[in-house]
Amino acid sequence: MSSINLDLLRQGNRRALAKAITLVESKLDKHREQAQDILEQVLPDTGKSIRIGISGIPGVGKSTFIEAFGLELIKRGKKVAVLAVDPSSPVRGGSILGDKTRMEELSREDNAFIRPSPSEGTLGGVAQKTRETMLLCESAGYDVILVETVGVGQSEYEVAAMVDFFLVLMIPNAGDELQGIKRGIMELADALVINKADGESINLARRTKQHYQNAFHLSKHGSFWNPRVETCSALEKERIGDIWEMICEYQQLAIDNQAFYEKRSRQNSEWMNKLIHELLELRLNQSPEVQARLPGLQSSVINNTCTPFSAAKQIVDLL
Amino acid sequence: MSSINLDLLRQGNRRALAKAITLVESKLDKHREQAQDILEQVLPDTGKSIRIGISGIPGVGKSTFIEAFGLELIKRGKKVAVLAVDPSSPVRGGSILGDKTRMEELSREDNAFIRPSPSEGTLGGVAQKTRETMLLCESAGYDVILVETVGVGQSEYEVAAMVDFFLVLMIPNAGDELQGIKRGIMELADALVINKADGESINLARRTKQHYQNAFHLSKHGSFWNPRVETCSALEKERIGDIWEMICEYQQLAIDNQAFYEKRSRQNSEWMNKLIHELLELRLNQSPEVQARLPGLQSSVINNTCTPFSAAKQIVDLL
Repeated sequence: MSSINLDLLRQGNRRALAKAITLVESKLDKHREQAQDILEQVLPDTGKSIRIGISGIPGVGKSTFIEAFGLELIKRGKKVAVLAVDPSSPVRGGSILGDKTRMEELSREDNAFIRPSPSEGTLGGVAQKTRETMLLCESAGYDVILVETVGVGQSEYEVAAMVDFFLVLMIPNAGDELQGIKRGIMELADALVINKADGESINLARRTKQHYQNAFHLSKHGSFWNPRVETCSALEKERIGDIWEMICEYQQLAIDNQAFYEKRSRQNSEWMNKLIHELLELRLNQSPEVQARLPGLQSSVINNTCTPFSAAKQIVDLL
Repeated sequence: MSSINLDLLRQGNRRALAKAITLVESKLDKHREQAQDILEQVLPDTGKSIRIGISGIPGVGKSTFIEAFGLELIKRGKKVAVLAVDPSSPVRGGSILGDKTRMEELSREDNAFIRPSPSEGTLGGVAQKTRETMLLCESAGYDVILVETVGVGQSEYEVAAMVDFFLVLMIPNAGDELQGIKRGIMELADALVINKADGESINLARRTKQHYQNAFHLSKHGSFWNPRVETCSALEKERIGDIWEMICEYQQLAIDNQAFYEKRSRQNSEWMNKLIHELLELRLNQSPEVQARLPGLQSSVINNTCTPFSAAKQIVDLL
């Protein structure tokens, strides 16, 4: 892979950005080193965007919403990057988000950059590559980063841990269970947006909004921001601007309350701790001594001739 | 601490058992080494009990149930050990399980051994100590180990990962949410037991049983065992023997289906992997070099002068 022109990257050159992201997503050690080198160099240019996580179960209209939202932002003079954390792709080979045929109108815009889910990586997984890709997009001058994820499993937590604002899309009146509303999600979400508030569903959407407003009222966050519940129609492109204005209001309040950069610092610290553990895991996987001893010790543990503790200690002592 | 007489331990001497457990629970490195030495030596004597996890939210009658269940088992000629994994004690200093004043009748039995929750430990936490205590109890001839936990948070998963059979106690008609029924629990439970099926609640308990039987029917496990739903009254000591017979039926089926020891082997492998990570974490915490560098690197990450990846790499390279 030829080297990346950092000046071009900083000027927002799409080819340079795409090449840098490919480097970040590479599994080869030498590419990863190059990627880290680039990341270190562009670090001063990062952090200037607002990072928005968008979640919601399949069928909620995420692509339609992101397309409408992205076009609205571009109309307002923003440069928008859309990234995806798709937990399905490493596991099943397939993708829930189905990157290829989506957001056609948005993808034709000069000020939009859409990057599909990275494929499986050895280090840090999909979420880590998305974090790093986010930094590269920031260095290339994108001022709104949308990180899309499917509302299932661990991926919501991973995305919430890398964004400034976490938005959960819902559909009118589908019931908590179907919407994937678990206890945790109410603590993650900065806003619930009931999509498909159009046609015959308008009143239903309003009632659903009331329902979740009550639920949020019960579980007070106790900070400067009480999670909002809004309705919109991505299909009719209605109330999309209001969603953006809500996020701007959040950002201003968060900055005024010293919460905005404090949250990013905390996220970076947590990310660092996570990376330490991932690097240690990688060491274990790459150590020939560990890989040689592991099967035998595992058998001993299974046959009850060695305690798991003693086996674990022997492995760790090899590092 | 004086040395442990292993012969006395194997003969079921309570003092020797209590001393060995104290060693296992100690935070001192030399005690931990002694403890591991003992565990290695008694390993051939372990594994002969049936290990039963008992969970349920506070108020469900866990103590009353365990006392009634334990007394029933002793009547049937068993030796019963009761251990606890109480996630609250390390965190809040207090204990949800409130070990001291419970199970008075059972605690007076010669064939019962009740050990309260271990206090906070550096290594592996409460659950690891409970695993090791379980092995010690087995070597001392206890043939039923009851591991009690509060039905909140991570502790249910930790207990399910160390037992043969996981039983969740419930009360009639309290609603899924109140009972702590999350998606995961339906996959952990081998049986739900509706306690307090007595007096005016008998019909309610029956309807609750029907409700959960339907729920289990919908989420088929697809193995040799379909989770059962039973009712009992711990207070009136009714249908307690039936619960035990259900567990014996499970054990026989699991052995016939090659699932019983296969599950234990898997648990041991997973435990070993967990311990590897805990030992690595311990190394980081105990390394003076790491502890000297960590604050500075954390600041660099927070000030955006160093990527989390680069900081993590510098830490790992110190090991």
